[in-house]
Amino acid sequence: MAAELKNDRFIRALLRQPVDKTPIWIMRQAGRYLPEYREVRAQAGDFMTLCSTPELACEVTLQPLRRFELDAAILFSDILTIPDAMGLGLYFEEGEGPKFKSPVSTAADIEKIGIPDPEQELRYVIDAVRLIRSELDGKVPLIGFSGSPWTLATYMVEGGSSKAFSKIKSMLFAEPDSAHLLLSKLADSVAVYLNAQIEAGAQAVMVFDSWGGALSDPHFKAFSLAYMQRIVDQLHREYDGKQIPAILFTKGGGLWLAELAATGCDALGLDWTMSLSRARELVGDKVALQGNMDPAIMATNPATIEKEVARILADFGNGNGHVFNLGHGITPNIDPDNVAALVEAVHTLSAQYHQ
Amino acid sequence: MAAELKNDRFIRALLRQPVDKTPIWIMRQAGRYLPEYREVRAQAGDFMTLCSTPELACEVTLQPLRRFELDAAILFSDILTIPDAMGLGLYFEEGEGPKFKSPVSTAADIEKIGIPDPEQELRYVIDAVRLIRSELDGKVPLIGFSGSPWTLATYMVEGGSSKAFSKIKSMLFAEPDSAHLLLSKLADSVAVYLNAQIEAGAQAVMVFDSWGGALSDPHFKAFSLAYMQRIVDQLHREYDGKQIPAILFTKGGGLWLAELAATGCDALGLDWTMSLSRARELVGDKVALQGNMDPAIMATNPATIEKEVARILADFGNGNGHVFNLGHGITPNIDPDNVAALVEAVHTLSAQYHQ
Repeated sequence: MAAELKNDRFIRALLRQPVDKTPIWIMRQAGRYLPEYREVRAQAGDFMTLCSTPELACEVTLQPLRRFELDAAILFSDILTIPDAMGLGLYFEEGEGPKFKSPVSTAADIEKIGIPDPEQELRYVIDAVRLIRSELDGKVPLIGFSGSPWTLATYMVEGGSSKAFSKIKSMLFAEPDSAHLLLSKLADSVAVYLNAQIEAGAQAVMVFDSWGGALSDPHFKAFSLAYMQRIVDQLHREYDGKQIPAILFTKGGGLWLAELAATGCDALGLDWTMSLSRARELVGDKVALQGNMDPAIMATNPATIEKEVARILADFGNGNGHVFNLGHGITPNIDPDNVAALVEAVHTLSAQYHQ
Repeated sequence: MAAELKNDRFIRALLRQPVDKTPIWIMRQAGRYLPEYREVRAQAGDFMTLCSTPELACEVTLQPLRRFELDAAILFSDILTIPDAMGLGLYFEEGEGPKFKSPVSTAADIEKIGIPDPEQELRYVIDAVRLIRSELDGKVPLIGFSGSPWTLATYMVEGGSSKAFSKIKSMLFAEPDSAHLLLSKLADSVAVYLNAQIEAGAQAVMVFDSWGGALSDPHFKAFSLAYMQRIVDQLHREYDGKQIPAILFTKGGGLWLAELAATGCDALGLDWTMSLSRARELVGDKVALQGNMDPAIMATNPATIEKEVARILADFGNGNGHVFNLGHGITPNIDPDNVAALVEAVHTLSAQYHQ
């Protein structure tokens, strides 16, 4: 029997219900800016060991909650667990991005790919979710997550990080059927994976479409949006008597907010390029909004951060449906005191918008 | 006495006048994908010698026009000539981006900066413009260009290329007065520089705001848009009896098209993320549009390129005011035969929209 939530601000805001203060969590809140994270990371030896050892993943997930009054925890994991479970051989080299030993390059490679069983090939993630949920003991909700099909496909076809996405984009243009087959398999894998996270205890889920913003308008709709839609259609929207909000986040996706909101998800993540007031005009009452402070400000000082928090809260204005966050992950060089200032500013300054 | 233009499609399209076919030029059309460019580049030794020797800059500017029926030439130069002329010491290391020996880091550094005199410190650029204009002999118009104030400032403060723009963004947040002083000096320098290019023979000018899309909505308006406005307000809009169209191009700027159009410029460059039909709805008859094919397609094949050209022309539809281009520079790995296919497809397939 899972503990009742002591702080449900995050879930309520995602469902556009009234809250006393705007909830906040921070993308990559369990990360290198925390000395205690760096310590566990060093003990683990390599990054994949950290991700694939439930006790360690649980420990780093909980670390930021011990320091800051954050309103949600997010599973510590990597976005590329699914391609790894598909047999591509994920590895990390120090100072470089993720890489795959066996990238996908031909139609035959795509044919061979199966849908990983989360309780088998991704068991370490699901076990981490179970452990974290239990350790949280209802303190705050736990967010499960996955990369979007398009974002996963970029790494799988490019063999790692990319700037120009030339291989995968050549596939979209010249072999669209192969791309659709790959993306269909990925969408179904993500849906099964997120549902398994929900069954293991995740109380909200988020799809990170980190590279959707690199696509042309018709390609975004056909190769990224359509497959996030396919995920939303398959997700558990309620589990164990509770609604499970689903958040979609396309970085650089400000041009497609109306289309993203029309998928039927509960909330949209926003990077800092789109103003919250304009986003609200575009999506109306369809979805909640999560964001959207430029992470660069975290390198300044508490007074400057507080001023920007005030601006962003005012930009959203009165009403329900705002979860505060950065517009992208917090970077490793940040002073944790600035994070404390951010969290406090959001809670203190937002109360006036929830009377 | 300058030769009359034999092909004025590009200028007419920028001014939203009728044309027989949609004009096309390609960002970075004088570049490494051409073997004859690589030969001159090797002769020159280093990149700055190529930029600062008018005969060599002229030669590489003209090379793509000998191969392809392009409708415009663009001055071969670097976007960082102004900061170099300000004394920052631009240099290039093989395989890396541009760097500055003396980046700007304090308010005192900014105080010391003066407005470079184009006929003195940037004489090599102005001489190149004069030479190219004369060598073109009216074949097609010559485009002059500059980086935008914000884009130049990012390199000057970061000391080179950047992903997160942490130093310059810290300045925007914590020392906005310093940033405004730097950007004011840059805007005035760009205006004087582009006017000198016009006086030397440039028949249209373009401002490349490569990094405007990295800013939050209020920061884009205050620190990039406002200074492009300051440039537009100072530019020669007519010279030697001819209108001189001005193009603004903010990469990733699809969210701000209406604001960019309101500056009074003649045309907006578009990257591939924004559809031309939606852009037309947003800007109405205010400006022409230039773009917007994803450069990744250039790695495919003529049939695929032709299909995408057809889609983009149809997306713009009937009417005046479209200049075809890629949404960003052409990359070095491209087969020149694909460029020939692109240019031919644009001219052949566009005639139906201009009857």
